Amino acid sequence: MIDAASLLKAIRAKKPLVHHITNWVTIYDCANIVRMVGALPVMAHAKEESAEMQAISSSLVLNIGTLTPELVESMILAAKKANELKHPIVLDAVGVGATKFRAAKALEIMDSVHVDIVKGNGSEIAKLAGSNVLTKGVEATEVKDDLLILTKKLAKKYNCTVAVTGAEDIIVSAKGTGFLVKNGNSLLSEFVGTGCMAASLLGCFAAVEENYTVASAVALSCFGIASELAAKKEAKPAAFKQELFDQLYSLSSENANVLQKIDVLK
Amino acid sequence: MIDAASLLKAIRAKKPLVHHITNWVTIYDCANIVRMVGALPVMAHAKEESAEMQAISSSLVLNIGTLTPELVESMILAAKKANELKHPIVLDAVGVGATKFRAAKALEIMDSVHVDIVKGNGSEIAKLAGSNVLTKGVEATEVKDDLLILTKKLAKKYNCTVAVTGAEDIIVSAKGTGFLVKNGNSLLSEFVGTGCMAASLLGCFAAVEENYTVASAVALSCFGIASELAAKKEAKPAAFKQELFDQLYSLSSENANVLQKIDVLK
Amino acid sequence: MIDAASLLKAIRAKKPLVHHITNWVTIYDCANIVRMVGALPVMAHAKEESAEMQAISSSLVLNIGTLTPELVESMILAAKKANELKHPIVLDAVGVGATKFRAAKALEIMDSVHVDIVKGNGSEIAKLAGSNVLTKGVEATEVKDDLLILTKKLAKKYNCTVAVTGAEDIIVSAKGTGFLVKNGNSLLSEFVGTGCMAASLLGCFAAVEENYTVASAVALSCFGIASELAAKKEAKPAAFKQELFDQLYSLSSENANVLQKIDVLK
Repeated sequence: MIDAASLLKAIRAKKPLVHHITNWVTIYDCANIVRMVGALPVMAHAKEESAEMQAISSSLVLNIGTLTPELVESMILAAKKANELKHPIVLDAVGVGATKFRAAKALEIMDSVHVDIVKGNGSEIAKLAGSNVLTKGVEATEVKDDLLILTKKLAKKYNCTVAVTGAEDIIVSAKGTGFLVKNGNSLLSEFVGTGCMAASLLGCFAAVEENYTVASAVALSCFGIASELAAKKEAKPAAFKQELFDQLYSLSSENANVLQKIDVLK
Repeated sequence: MIDAASLLKAIRAKKPLVHHITNWVTIYDCANIVRMVGALPVMAHAKEESAEMQAISSSLVLNIGTLTPELVESMILAAKKANELKHPIVLDAVGVGATKFRAAKALEIMDSVHVDIVKGNGSEIAKLAGSNVLTKGVEATEVKDDLLILTKKLAKKYNCTVAVTGAEDIIVSAKGTGFLVKNGNSLLSEFVGTGCMAASLLGCFAAVEENYTVASAVALSCFGIASELAAKKEAKPAAFKQELFDQLYSLSSENANVLQKIDVLK
Repeated sequence: MIDAASLLKAIRAKKPLVHHITNWVTIYDCANIVRMVGALPVMAHAKEESAEMQAISSSLVLNIGTLTPELVESMILAAKKANELKHPIVLDAVGVGATKFRAAKALEIMDSVHVDIVKGNGSEIAKLAGSNVLTKGVEATEVKDDLLILTKKLAKKYNCTVAVTGAEDIIVSAKGTGFLVKNGNSLLSEFVGTGCMAASLLGCFAAVEENYTVASAVALSCFGIASELAAKKEAKPAAFKQELFDQLYSLSSENANVLQKIDVLK
């Protein structure tokens, strides 16, 4: 078992500043989910300050959900500073596979700086790995190739951790080792924004744990545990969403370990 | 009685992708309300991808709540693709009548492409139809001219469906026929965003029903029914809003027909 | 005791239009909190219409949470119109002290137009007053210099009201007189956006009370009272946030006076 409790305690004690350049749809939830685990969010997308804001932060979350060329320019400025200061960078590849522009810009980021954790749903990750898939807007579609092989290929090529969210989350390190996270509840896919929130949580946990594959597994497991606890209280998406935030806020270190369902990837 | 149940079932079965170029205030609620009825939202406002994202979508919702010239440029690119592929286009004329810029840009869109459903509150629609009214920001003001005559005039001129939201919603086809939707609850006007949500729902229903006047009546009726059911449980706006989303999510096909209050317009 | 009840009644009777140019993180909550006290929000950031929208509004809220140079340009256009028409202007100095860009742009606004109420947390206000502090993103850090002296210095220099939010809110007029507002609950700092909401409320109350120091004290007191009432019902941040909105919506004029904890500043 991974010691999730210690990481959760570390976030709450250190209150790392998690800088985001993200999309306009879920930007509030991205910021707020960060507060729920005890970290502090900041969002500064102007190219005049994105690098300077990164300098006082502990990690960086890039989310291309409503990207523009200008926003990607600011992302790269912040990311270069993050690389320089060894702050972990999370890239949420939202909608890659839906338009040529998204794939091109995601790869431009990954080729311009070192991204530490690439996160996406199945078809987003498959597309980044070179598979010919069509993401339905920002929704995953079935991937015909072997997703695990594609994930390992991408992690190796970019020497990074890759996190694939889904009914079971797959997390793979550059070496091809990793985890399967089986926590979660199907209500997470009944409303907008949970994928983005997951990426923001990756930024929180990576700020306190240098092994980003472990950090990713714990982040997604904690999110999944909170969803399981919330689903015991609420059965409809809007009430469930509110309860999800409160469960994450009050997730005890003990629960984080006891309810954890993380398997070592075979 | 219109068969709302079949349309609701069709959305849930087909899960149409509803592309939005919308405002930054209510963008999350626009996306989330789409999920509540079973469709899938995507928001892609960069001019580099707005047309390509439209190509894989089923309908387009344009909302000028926080418009800029650049955003309108992207809207027109997406809308031309939608016209080409015969995807229905909804235009929510938010704030038309408050500034010259808004009226000019709304009309620029309507003159550049064929909009299938123009939606607004009373003073927004009156202004588009040529009446001299002042919208109070994004809030309707009293219209002294006959609103129904103005609505029919606008629908005829642009050969489209016009939906006027209010205590009773007026929906008129290009031929001057239409419906009055009497579902709804006054709590809908006590918080921000319900007008925008209504436009997003028009985009969902128009994606599965080619008669856009019927689609509009059903969309607004379902939204109104959900509000009536929510108002039985919650009396204050924030709790009511959450309940509204959950009522829409769990709206049964049966309720959609039984509780429907749609009159044929005389 | 200040007569908060009358101001609350005046907002609900006059329904002033409160124009915002604000950030993309909390923009929805800024708009919605305005509705909760009975005013009407509008957000129009395009430079083509920001001044014209101001002309039909009653006050202006500028929030630099996700500023860009273009946004600041629109802010100044709206603000010049507000000055011309004697509409009160609130500036929320979000993140000043975190990057050079934020301090420079906040001061550019304050030097280009007359701001009536400058609002910030302790380190934001200290930075504006010339102190050498580092704001942690948008979170206040400890201020070593005497905060009250800095606040009075800033108020005098810019001939305006300065509102410093914190466990106790400090409000100072240009003359150095003012109030301490002791209403509030610690849950307000457990989720994102309460600082921004407070600034939007300043815009509502300043629209109906020409003494902006009094208006600010009442606004922050009412917000604090609503938080105290909400905390009696909900103990976790997401549920508390919803309850906070509903408590503000249903805040009676009587409660606004009875529960008020405003001290005259010594």
